[in-house]
Amino acid sequence: MQAQSQRESMKIAVIGQGYVGLPLSLLFVNKGFHVFGIDLDHRKIESLLQGKSYLPDVTDKEIADSNQSGRFVSTSRYDSVSEAEAIIICVPTPLNSSHLPDLTILERAVAGTAKFLRKGHSVILESSTYPGTTREIVQPILEKESGLAAGTDFYLGYSPERIDPGNETYKVENIPKLISGITPACIEKISNLYARAFQKVVSVSSPEVAEMSKLLENSHRLINISFINEIATICDALNIDVWEVIEAAKTKPFGFTPYYPGPGIGGHCIPVDPLYLQWKAQQEGISSKFIQLSDEINRSVPSYLASRVSALLQKHSAPANANVLIYGVTYKKDVNDVRESPVLDLIVQLQASGYSVSYHDPYVPSITLADTIYNSVDIDESSLRNAHCVIIATDHSVIPIHDILAYAPLIYDSRNITAGLSGSGKVYRIGTGN
Amino acid sequence: MQAQSQRESMKIAVIGQGYVGLPLSLLFVNKGFHVFGIDLDHRKIESLLQGKSYLPDVTDKEIADSNQSGRFVSTSRYDSVSEAEAIIICVPTPLNSSHLPDLTILERAVAGTAKFLRKGHSVILESSTYPGTTREIVQPILEKESGLAAGTDFYLGYSPERIDPGNETYKVENIPKLISGITPACIEKISNLYARAFQKVVSVSSPEVAEMSKLLENSHRLINISFINEIATICDALNIDVWEVIEAAKTKPFGFTPYYPGPGIGGHCIPVDPLYLQWKAQQEGISSKFIQLSDEINRSVPSYLASRVSALLQKHSAPANANVLIYGVTYKKDVNDVRESPVLDLIVQLQASGYSVSYHDPYVPSITLADTIYNSVDIDESSLRNAHCVIIATDHSVIPIHDILAYAPLIYDSRNITAGLSGSGKVYRIGTGN
Repeated sequence: MQAQSQRESMKIAVIGQGYVGLPLSLLFVNKGFHVFGIDLDHRKIESLLQGKSYLPDVTDKEIADSNQSGRFVSTSRYDSVSEAEAIIICVPTPLNSSHLPDLTILERAVAGTAKFLRKGHSVILESSTYPGTTREIVQPILEKESGLAAGTDFYLGYSPERIDPGNETYKVENIPKLISGITPACIEKISNLYARAFQKVVSVSSPEVAEMSKLLENSHRLINISFINEIATICDALNIDVWEVIEAAKTKPFGFTPYYPGPGIGGHCIPVDPLYLQWKAQQEGISSKFIQLSDEINRSVPSYLASRVSALLQKHSAPANANVLIYGVTYKKDVNDVRESPVLDLIVQLQASGYSVSYHDPYVPSITLADTIYNSVDIDESSLRNAHCVIIATDHSVIPIHDILAYAPLIYDSRNITAGLSGSGKVYRIGTGN
Repeated sequence: MQAQSQRESMKIAVIGQGYVGLPLSLLFVNKGFHVFGIDLDHRKIESLLQGKSYLPDVTDKEIADSNQSGRFVSTSRYDSVSEAEAIIICVPTPLNSSHLPDLTILERAVAGTAKFLRKGHSVILESSTYPGTTREIVQPILEKESGLAAGTDFYLGYSPERIDPGNETYKVENIPKLISGITPACIEKISNLYARAFQKVVSVSSPEVAEMSKLLENSHRLINISFINEIATICDALNIDVWEVIEAAKTKPFGFTPYYPGPGIGGHCIPVDPLYLQWKAQQEGISSKFIQLSDEINRSVPSYLASRVSALLQKHSAPANANVLIYGVTYKKDVNDVRESPVLDLIVQLQASGYSVSYHDPYVPSITLADTIYNSVDIDESSLRNAHCVIIATDHSVIPIHDILAYAPLIYDSRNITAGLSGSGKVYRIGTGN
């Protein structure tokens, strides 16, 4: 009962109510915490207050239930920080136009927190960022603004978010939670906090190790997916089916992990985080040639796809201004997120080649590219027949693949969902030659 | 009983009695086959006839038992091919001095087989090689020499060896066996043969898919290990312990597979096979930038290690001609194989820097480098104290780590086996800074 009442009374603030902060907030609410969900985006707060979700992984009901519990307060005001005992920062850490780390949003969130910092507070950063950020960026801002000392007056640490949108097996609660702190007391305090919500908490010796491990995880993915995309181009040239090759290699029970080709990697993490590591390495006068190469190859996939499609259109005697219909514009299946989506670049490239490009995505009603607004078109017999080529760019679970196969005269499949299927028109898959 | 007697009576020839062919031969003997183990290396045949193993994974007893069964005949003569029903080719496919595929040994083995080829024979290639080898190299030699037609008169296919020397869990029999053939009849024939010896046989649609899958498996490893070696250099620069970072990242239950830094990758497969793929890609006018980069980085690790050790020796005021003792020269632990071992390059580099280099390896009595013969020295209190630096290059299970820690004044550990341990002298681990 002691523990229970203590748990119920604890208040935390989660700054940033995006794909990381919102599920985290709801988890803590479910565990009995009072949570202030803070976001400067008024539309998000409005939506939360109305019990409406803006994330595919979060249901309206989960938000409504949290609201009804009386322990979830969503707000755009930082002053609720002063009421909380712990502040968790989950704001975006994007790249600027030169592909360099842009910590502006993070710095503002930290400064906003610092104003209300009190003795005994815990501050935990969850945003993916380069090693050293917690100690070299966050700590000085907090200390300067508040006049308090990290490690003495307040607790400070880093715990990388590991959310995988769309993953049905691993959600916030059952993904092991790495935590760190700038002193042993910080580690203990932060570990105790997270242990109340997460199934498994693993502490590491320093924020730098925790920061680096997140970048390693995502760099590992960037490199492996970029490599298999390169292999797909080689298989195209050799007329070998890369998908069958991967299935074959997968039968080896050790030493091999399958990754799959596609239109390139997008999203807020995999294409971005490695460049944070690259930037930090470059500050030390070295660099990762692997990250550089992976970034280059990843950015080149859309133009490779565009050139394959263009060659196919010519082969099939389509007009120079052929209609190209793209299914799916998000960076992966079953999400509504187009950040860094390679499909956007694919559209731009095809448009520049003179094709008339349209798209359908059940989760994205419209996109804006180079000042042009594209609205998702209906996908039906008429639009499919009218397209000289249909490109399967994202394989949402709801894709009407049998309609596409039945009506599209030419299909270019970048996701291998047509494997083993045939259509009334010709079907090509990336990495299989022809 | 039918199946049993059929099995007992079947004769096969295995050409090449190295780390692939010998375990394969013994497996087939154990399954009741008569096996002709053919190798042109008279020392190997002599050793087999005496019941003595030259591979750490094969015991003398296994060879002696096979000899005593009367169903294992080791020989240097190809004419026993004519007595066999199936011929399995397991010969080395190395690189030449320009790092290009050298199929000379393979071509000779195929030509030797062709002389004795009969109708109804099955010929299976197991050597790792670029896609197209079975159809473009092996088939023409067999057909021209024998006057027989592959797919009609004899069966032909490719089945990549997947042996992992030193692996206690996965040995020949329980590693799923990929097989392929140039016709459906070839696939069926070869599948039936291997199914009598292997726990699981998986057939793929073409020899090219099987050839490519093996190269993908090993390219995947080369790239991942080279990447983590690059990350180790970044961690050195950032003073972050790469080993702790990997342990932390490993706690993520999806999307990450751990690989570990070391002195570089050696052996007959991982550094070699990807260059076979590279060569083939280049024939098509393209290339793998990932393989090129991985090869470059892998070849640079020994000089990185040498420079780290050199800096440490200076830091610890060792003389310019300091004694450096290297533990382990094989390309991985618990094997006696120094092919492509990066440790050989490390020795050359240290020697060139003016150090007096000696080595100890319980499995390698001597090595020859640039016309100089090095004999393995004893590793004891005297030799350890006498070394200004001991480099742990290979972590054989029998390494006397406590002696090394007790007596060596300075240790550079490239395998992280000193993690958490301390010695009387200073201990450095790769990828941890300092």
